[in-house]
Amino acid sequence: MKVLVTGIDGYSGWPLALHLLARGHDVAGIDSFVTRRRVREVGSWSATPIPPWPKRQEAVRRLLGRELRFYRGDLGRYAFVEEVLRTERPDAIVHLAEQRSAPYSMIDVHHAVATQAENLTGTLHLLYAMRAHCPEAHLVKMGTMGEYGTPNVDIPEGFFEIEYRGRTDRLPFPRQAGSWYHWSKVFDSGDVMFASRIWGLRATDVMQGVIYGVRTPEITDDALLTRFDFDEVWGTALNRFVVQAILGMPITPYGRGFQRRGFIALEDSMQSLRLAIEHPPAAGEYRVFNQFDAAYSVNELAERTRAVAEEFGLHPTIEHPPDPRVEAEEHYYQPIHDHLAALGYRATRELSEVLRELFRDLRRFRRRLEAKRHVLRPVVQWRSGDNRPPLAARAEGPAPAPAPVPAPPVAADVPTSRTAA
Amino acid sequence: MKVLVTGIDGYSGWPLALHLLARGHDVAGIDSFVTRRRVREVGSWSATPIPPWPKRQEAVRRLLGRELRFYRGDLGRYAFVEEVLRTERPDAIVHLAEQRSAPYSMIDVHHAVATQAENLTGTLHLLYAMRAHCPEAHLVKMGTMGEYGTPNVDIPEGFFEIEYRGRTDRLPFPRQAGSWYHWSKVFDSGDVMFASRIWGLRATDVMQGVIYGVRTPEITDDALLTRFDFDEVWGTALNRFVVQAILGMPITPYGRGFQRRGFIALEDSMQSLRLAIEHPPAAGEYRVFNQFDAAYSVNELAERTRAVAEEFGLHPTIEHPPDPRVEAEEHYYQPIHDHLAALGYRATRELSEVLRELFRDLRRFRRRLEAKRHVLRPVVQWRSGDNRPPLAARAEGPAPAPAPVPAPPVAADVPTSRTAA
Repeated sequence: MKVLVTGIDGYSGWPLALHLLARGHDVAGIDSFVTRRRVREVGSWSATPIPPWPKRQEAVRRLLGRELRFYRGDLGRYAFVEEVLRTERPDAIVHLAEQRSAPYSMIDVHHAVATQAENLTGTLHLLYAMRAHCPEAHLVKMGTMGEYGTPNVDIPEGFFEIEYRGRTDRLPFPRQAGSWYHWSKVFDSGDVMFASRIWGLRATDVMQGVIYGVRTPEITDDALLTRFDFDEVWGTALNRFVVQAILGMPITPYGRGFQRRGFIALEDSMQSLRLAIEHPPAAGEYRVFNQFDAAYSVNELAERTRAVAEEFGLHPTIEHPPDPRVEAEEHYYQPIHDHLAALGYRATRELSEVLRELFRDLRRFRRRLEAKRHVLRPVVQWRSGDNRPPLAARAEGPAPAPAPVPAPPVAADVPTSRTAA
Repeated sequence: MKVLVTGIDGYSGWPLALHLLARGHDVAGIDSFVTRRRVREVGSWSATPIPPWPKRQEAVRRLLGRELRFYRGDLGRYAFVEEVLRTERPDAIVHLAEQRSAPYSMIDVHHAVATQAENLTGTLHLLYAMRAHCPEAHLVKMGTMGEYGTPNVDIPEGFFEIEYRGRTDRLPFPRQAGSWYHWSKVFDSGDVMFASRIWGLRATDVMQGVIYGVRTPEITDDALLTRFDFDEVWGTALNRFVVQAILGMPITPYGRGFQRRGFIALEDSMQSLRLAIEHPPAAGEYRVFNQFDAAYSVNELAERTRAVAEEFGLHPTIEHPPDPRVEAEEHYYQPIHDHLAALGYRATRELSEVLRELFRDLRRFRRRLEAKRHVLRPVVQWRSGDNRPPLAARAEGPAPAPAPVPAPPVAADVPTSRTAA
């Protein structure tokens, strides 16, 4: 099939492109490289060095023997989106080109507005351009399990049958997101659901669990590595824990650590997205997949990380800093996830196994981690209206001991540069 | 109390200011006059001539003996919002400064994006500026009953207790909006709910029913009139019906006409908003009011309008053009509305009585209606991705018979002009 991946330069966009190419699909991509810029904005970088875009394209040609068509641009410009869809007329569009960090959205008013306005605008532009140029295409839109929050009941896949005051209906499950970013995903879900209804578009809304890992079978060479963010703004809790263990720092679950979330391995997330693409919904159908394999509490992630660290001769302690977020630190969590299994999905990776792989991979990039160890500490506070002063203070202040290894050259924006993000 | 009204130049912002001033509250307002511009954009104007802003301020001084402080600006500029809140430090903010037309949001991709991005940005800017400069203030934010759509169960006020798979929780009632505009209100509701949770802000989210009427007791002089939109983009169904009857045109409920909605008289809407202001919620409380008095189907509105028209010697027929919207034309509709009654709200106006008042008022402005009779016909189609060509064709095409009376000078943007919107 002909697949367009928006955000193809990103953490899951890149391995998705490789995964689809390896299975014979025709893949084109869009990116504006904004994530590279924004990770630099908070003083961080990817643990894995990410080559400039032309090198990535070249590696695909050399190692997979395939062409990867690419359009550099921003989904905020409608003429660009129209041009790409008119040219490509894809069978499926996997929409990953969104600001994806909850802490980034909570930095201050301008980051909140940028997150919500940009994510919404990009999605609306895609929906309108689909209607105009490829109305039969299938939109696979990335949501997040975080849209649902932590209700005291089971979480269905998007919709549920309820009885209320003696009558029944099938309704969208209520959303209670926990950051401006998570709300932006709720908003996208509403727009995609509505577009399916009025225009008969096909859509799969993927309530993505937290993805872990940095490797898929297609990544056979360092030139094909995907990015791995570990700072407090762009990294997940698990990513931070692994890096803390490697750097000899305490592992730090926020608050009491009983917050539970759904998780899925990178490779299995790619399998899920491919299954969604290969089994499109009917015209006008808007379906929701809860895409995760297992739920873990933050404390369980910390313990698992510590256990695997011990195998590598590392002996991290576990500490609990105050939770910078506003969230329930102990709650019920039982999401349903049957839809993907019905399409043939089977989990192939297990957390501890992927953790071992992560330790092996990341130890090779220890110098890049050392250089940025100060970005692991939580600075962005949900309760603050303006986190720029503490972020700036961290950027300017003396680096914590031990003194960092001199930093490699800063990654460049321009994809023709030779430096790494 | 000290009240800031955003969108004070608008249909409900203006009578709200008069209502609050008449009851001794201190009132300041914000507007960018964007609605005046956007009504002109679709070739229409208010049935009632609206003086430029300085004349409105002057009329308040002369007729009510009160000062109305005013800030001209756009909520899209954060520095402006901060400056106003820092200067005013209001006890309550009534936020009416949003793009409020469903058809306008459906014109094309750019109107969709403008509606959602601008409404979200304005609300986020207000929330952040409140947190920084008046965290104890009470935000009265205008939502719409249309956020809920038309579920097959009763519609509670914002939240409901449910049992699902043997467990119970109190959850936000699911939203199923019917236009990009209505979704923008859903999104605002999410952001306001979240801001209350993380920052302890006080908020009332008013799920406003359709407002009808053009007169409140404070409007004692034509210089104090509020606007009355009747074109297909900016006017409500009821407004169109009254104008159609006056112009000797058929009354045109869309589709089968069994679509039911909640309605409230302008004067009673002002009473409701004042009660919300005078009884603020606790810090951190986010409460929802379903603000309407009675539900009517579009057919019932058409029949009521025809009955009152007969009293005025008019004999309109009723015709059913195809519904340009995508909506259920026959459905269950039973929203609950107890919260305002608990604060002492009592309906004072009844539909047919207000219809008589409307016929009396609008017949005086018959020339302004005649000049714009072509804007009553539905052009904006929900199923179309681009309604600009038919809108442009209408603007350029010959006016339908009878030939319109020469139009008065077009309203000016600049509030110092002497022309009327």
